[in-house]
Amino acid sequence: MTNLSEEEFLWAKQVYFERCAGCHGTLRKGATGPALTPDRTTAMGTTALSAIIFNGTPRGMPDWGKQGFFTPEQIDILARFLQQEPPAPPEMSLEQMKNSWRLLVSPAERPGAPATKRNWQNYFMVTLRDVGQVAVIDGDTYEVVSNVDTGYAVHITRMSATGRYAYVIGRDGKLALVDLWMETPTKVAEVQVCYDARSVEVSKYEGPEGDFTDRLAVVGCYWPPHFVILDGQTLEPMNIISTHGYTVDTKEYHPEPRVTSIVVSHYKPEWIINVKEIGQIWLVNYVDPFAPQIKMLRAARYLHDGGWDASRRYFLVAASQSNKVAVVDALEGKIAALVDTPKIPHPGREANWIDPEFGPVWSSAHLGDPAIVSIGTDPEGHAESAWKAVRVTPLPGAGSLFIKTHPNSQWIWVDMTLKPDPVLARTICVIAKQQPTELYRCWEASSYGRAVHFEYNAAGTEVWVSIWGDASKPGQTGEIVVYDDATLTEKAHIPNLITPTGKFNVFNTVGDIY
Amino acid sequence: MTNLSEEEFLWAKQVYFERCAGCHGTLRKGATGPALTPDRTTAMGTTALSAIIFNGTPRGMPDWGKQGFFTPEQIDILARFLQQEPPAPPEMSLEQMKNSWRLLVSPAERPGAPATKRNWQNYFMVTLRDVGQVAVIDGDTYEVVSNVDTGYAVHITRMSATGRYAYVIGRDGKLALVDLWMETPTKVAEVQVCYDARSVEVSKYEGPEGDFTDRLAVVGCYWPPHFVILDGQTLEPMNIISTHGYTVDTKEYHPEPRVTSIVVSHYKPEWIINVKEIGQIWLVNYVDPFAPQIKMLRAARYLHDGGWDASRRYFLVAASQSNKVAVVDALEGKIAALVDTPKIPHPGREANWIDPEFGPVWSSAHLGDPAIVSIGTDPEGHAESAWKAVRVTPLPGAGSLFIKTHPNSQWIWVDMTLKPDPVLARTICVIAKQQPTELYRCWEASSYGRAVHFEYNAAGTEVWVSIWGDASKPGQTGEIVVYDDATLTEKAHIPNLITPTGKFNVFNTVGDIY
Repeated sequence: MTNLSEEEFLWAKQVYFERCAGCHGTLRKGATGPALTPDRTTAMGTTALSAIIFNGTPRGMPDWGKQGFFTPEQIDILARFLQQEPPAPPEMSLEQMKNSWRLLVSPAERPGAPATKRNWQNYFMVTLRDVGQVAVIDGDTYEVVSNVDTGYAVHITRMSATGRYAYVIGRDGKLALVDLWMETPTKVAEVQVCYDARSVEVSKYEGPEGDFTDRLAVVGCYWPPHFVILDGQTLEPMNIISTHGYTVDTKEYHPEPRVTSIVVSHYKPEWIINVKEIGQIWLVNYVDPFAPQIKMLRAARYLHDGGWDASRRYFLVAASQSNKVAVVDALEGKIAALVDTPKIPHPGREANWIDPEFGPVWSSAHLGDPAIVSIGTDPEGHAESAWKAVRVTPLPGAGSLFIKTHPNSQWIWVDMTLKPDPVLARTICVIAKQQPTELYRCWEASSYGRAVHFEYNAAGTEVWVSIWGDASKPGQTGEIVVYDDATLTEKAHIPNLITPTGKFNVFNTVGDIY
Repeated sequence: MTNLSEEEFLWAKQVYFERCAGCHGTLRKGATGPALTPDRTTAMGTTALSAIIFNGTPRGMPDWGKQGFFTPEQIDILARFLQQEPPAPPEMSLEQMKNSWRLLVSPAERPGAPATKRNWQNYFMVTLRDVGQVAVIDGDTYEVVSNVDTGYAVHITRMSATGRYAYVIGRDGKLALVDLWMETPTKVAEVQVCYDARSVEVSKYEGPEGDFTDRLAVVGCYWPPHFVILDGQTLEPMNIISTHGYTVDTKEYHPEPRVTSIVVSHYKPEWIINVKEIGQIWLVNYVDPFAPQIKMLRAARYLHDGGWDASRRYFLVAASQSNKVAVVDALEGKIAALVDTPKIPHPGREANWIDPEFGPVWSSAHLGDPAIVSIGTDPEGHAESAWKAVRVTPLPGAGSLFIKTHPNSQWIWVDMTLKPDPVLARTICVIAKQQPTELYRCWEASSYGRAVHFEYNAAGTEVWVSIWGDASKPGQTGEIVVYDDATLTEKAHIPNLITPTGKFNVFNTVGDIY
C-alpha cells in the first residue's frame, strides 16, 4: 500500500528534497547514495525501506529514526513516497531568476575606495550554518564586524579577484554579494538562481583577452542541473548553461548531472566546472559570457570537491564513486591523470606542502578511510611521484572532513568531524611536515560540539577552528578557537556564534592559498 | 472523454512520432507547428482538435483527413491522445548504438585505390525516399551503378573529404557508409544513433592540428536531442553530446532542442551545429572527439537548414520562427549578423552568385512567401549590401523548397514543389543572373508528380531535377530529368526511379559548391 494523501505527499517531497536529494539525487538516480527509483524501491517494499531509514547503513546512510529526526509514522510515509515515481522538480527560467534579483546598493552608490580603516583583506567570512547568515570577522581584532543575511545553510563564500566582494552561496540557491569596502560590510545584491546549489566562483583573468577583475560570477547548481553566469557587480543573471549529458563511462543519458565544485584559473579566462553524475570536467572560457566556449573533459564519476596544486597549474578533484582523484592540467586544457586512492576521497580545497621524501604533494582527507592521502604534484622535479598516491598517514578513525596547511607553516591540521564518538568529533590533530608518517599531536578543541574546518589568517601565523554547536543551546551554539600556528597554543576565542562552520579568509581565498 | 485503450494509445503514439513530431516536437513543445501540450489541447477539446487534423490550417498543417490518410475514427483517437501528457520517449545509450553497429567490410578489406574505372567523383547519390535506399548514379553515363539499402526516408548524404565515402542518414537515425571506390559501391558499415535524425557531416581539416581527412563523422539527431561523433571509417560511435539547454531569447529550459543542419569548416577542425529549439549555433572543435570543445553562439529560434557563402567563411542559416537568417563568421567564431527576411525562410544549402547591382549574394527560397530573397555576403567589397536582404525576386506563388546554381552558370534554378496546383508543383523556373528582377523562363519538367531539388554535375554543365512520383504507380514512380545548363534543353532521362528526391554530386558536395 503506497498511496499517500496529498498532505503526506507534499511533506515527503519537501523532506526528501532537504534530507535525501543531496546523496540520492532529486530524480533519485543515485550518486553518493544508491538509486531509489521505483523499480528498486518497490522490490524492497515499505518494511525494508523503513528499516533503513530508521537504522541507517554502514555505507553512510544516517540513522534518521534512531537519531530522532523522524517518527516511525513519518518514516512509513517516506518509505511509501519512495515507491512512487519521483515528482518532476520545477525548472527555473532567466525570468524567474530576474524576478528574485535585488540590487540593494548600485555600484555607483558604493565607495570608490575602502571606507573602513580595518584591515579588510584579513576579514574572515564565517558561515553561520543554521541561521542563514555569514559573520564578517576582523582577523586582526577578532571582532564580528557584521552579520549578513544570506541564503540558507551557506555552503561556501568566494572573493572577487581584488577581494573587495564576497559571494556567498546558500544551499537554497540564493547568492548574496557583500561589499567589504563599506564601513560595515553590507549585502549589496542578491538573487536566486537554483533551488539547490553548492558552488560559486568569480572571474580573475586580466591579460590580452580583457580585464575580468571583479567582473563575473558563476553559480553551480544541484537542481536545476545547470550553471549560471552573472554580472559580478550586480548579480544580474546573464546566461544559463545546462549540464544534461551522457555519463563518462557507460555513455548513458543522465537527467540530473549536478555541478559540484568550480574553480577559476589564475592564468586563463576559464572556469573549471565539475559535473558530478556524468563525471565530466568542463573548461568554460568566459570571455564572452553570452557565448561561452566549453571543453568537455572526461574524468570519472562522481566528481565532488577539489583544489589547486601549489603551482596552480593543476586542479585535483575527487571522484568519490570511483575512488579516484582526477588531475586537470589547466594550462594544457586536458586531464593529466586519474589517480587511484583509498575509499571515498572527500577533499575541500585541501593542503599543498613539501613532503621530505616525495617533494610537492597535495593531501586530502577521506570520508571512508582513516587516513590522509598525499599525491605527488611535481611531474618535472619528482616525476616518479607525480600523480601517484605516495603517502598514507593514518588517523585514529574515518570521518575527517577537512585538512589545511599554509606555505609558511610546519603543520598540517585535520578534523574528525563526522566521528560518532563525541570526544573524537571535537578533537583536532596536527601532522608535522618533517615527520609525516604519523600524527604529531591531537587534542580536544572544545568541551562541546564538533570541531570542523580550518582557515589561516592572511599572514599564515594563526589557525581558526570552528566549534559547531547546537543553535538551540545558549552558551553552546558555537564559537571559533584561534591558535598560534607556531606553538599550537590557544590564542583567542570568538564566542557565541551560532553553528559556525566554513571560514574564508579574504586574502587566502583570493590567492587560493592552501 | 480522453481515455484510450492500450492499443489505441500505442497506435497514436507511433503515428504522432511519424507524422506530427517533426513540426510539433516529440514532447509537443512546438516548433514549426504550435505547442500541443495538455494545457492547450484540453482547452481546445476533442472536436476542435479533430477538425484541425481533418481539415488542416492555412499556416501549414496538412489536411490529413481530407487527403484520406486517416479515418474520422482514427482522427478521434489522435485528438484524444493529444489531450494526454506526452509519453516520455526513450533515451539511447552508447551501448544501444553499439548493439546496432555493423561493420560489414572492414577498412583493411576495402580497396587501396579506386577499383572502378568509372568517374566516381561525378557520381550522384540519389535519395529514393519511399524505399529506404539511395541510388548511386554515374553522372557521365546516367547508369544506376548501385542501389544501396539505407535508413528510411533518407534526409541527406554527405561525402568524406576525399569524396571516397558517402554517409547516408535516414530519418530513422540509421547511418549508412558507402564506399565509392568499390567496383560496385557497397554499404560497408551501418549504425543507428537516434530514433529520428536529419543531418550528417564529416571531418575535413588537414593542418597543424592534425589530418582529419576521412576520419570522423557526426550525426545530428531530432530525438534524442543530441549529436553523436563516430569513427568515419567504421561508424563506431565514439561520443554523445546532449543539446538540452536554455532558449536563446527567454532563457527557458527546453527538453527537446533538436539538431537540424550541420556543416563542416573548410579551414578549421570544426563543425557548425544548429540547435533548433534553443536558437543556438554550436561551434564544435573535433580535434579530440572524446573531449570536444564547444562554443555556444546565440542566434534565433528556430534554426533550420543553411549553407556557406561563396568564400566559405560565412555560414548562413534560416531561423524560421524569427523570420531571420543568422550569419556565422566561421573564421572569427562569432555571429556576424542576424538578417531580417520575409516569412519562413527554408533554405537547403542555397545559391551563391554575383548580383549585377549588389555583388556577391546568397539566395534562399521561402516556404511562406512567393519569392527568392538574396542577402549580400561581401562585407569587404560591398559593405552597404552586406548582411541585408537586398533583393526579392517574385515567384508565381509560395511553396518553393530548393534553389540552386553553380559558379559557371548564368542561371538560378527554383522549384515549387509544395504548390497545391499539380501543374505548378511539377513546374520549374530559372532566373537569369544578369536580370534578377524577374523569372526568365518556367516550364513543366514532367507530365506527373512534383519536381523537386536540383543538383549540378561536377563540371557544372548539367542540372539534374527529380520527378517525385508515386511508389504505387508503375511508370510514374519517378525519374530524373537532366538539362543542359547552357541551353536549358532536356539532355537525358533516368527513368523508373522510386520517389527520387535529394541528389548529391560527389565533387560538388565535397567542395560545398552551390
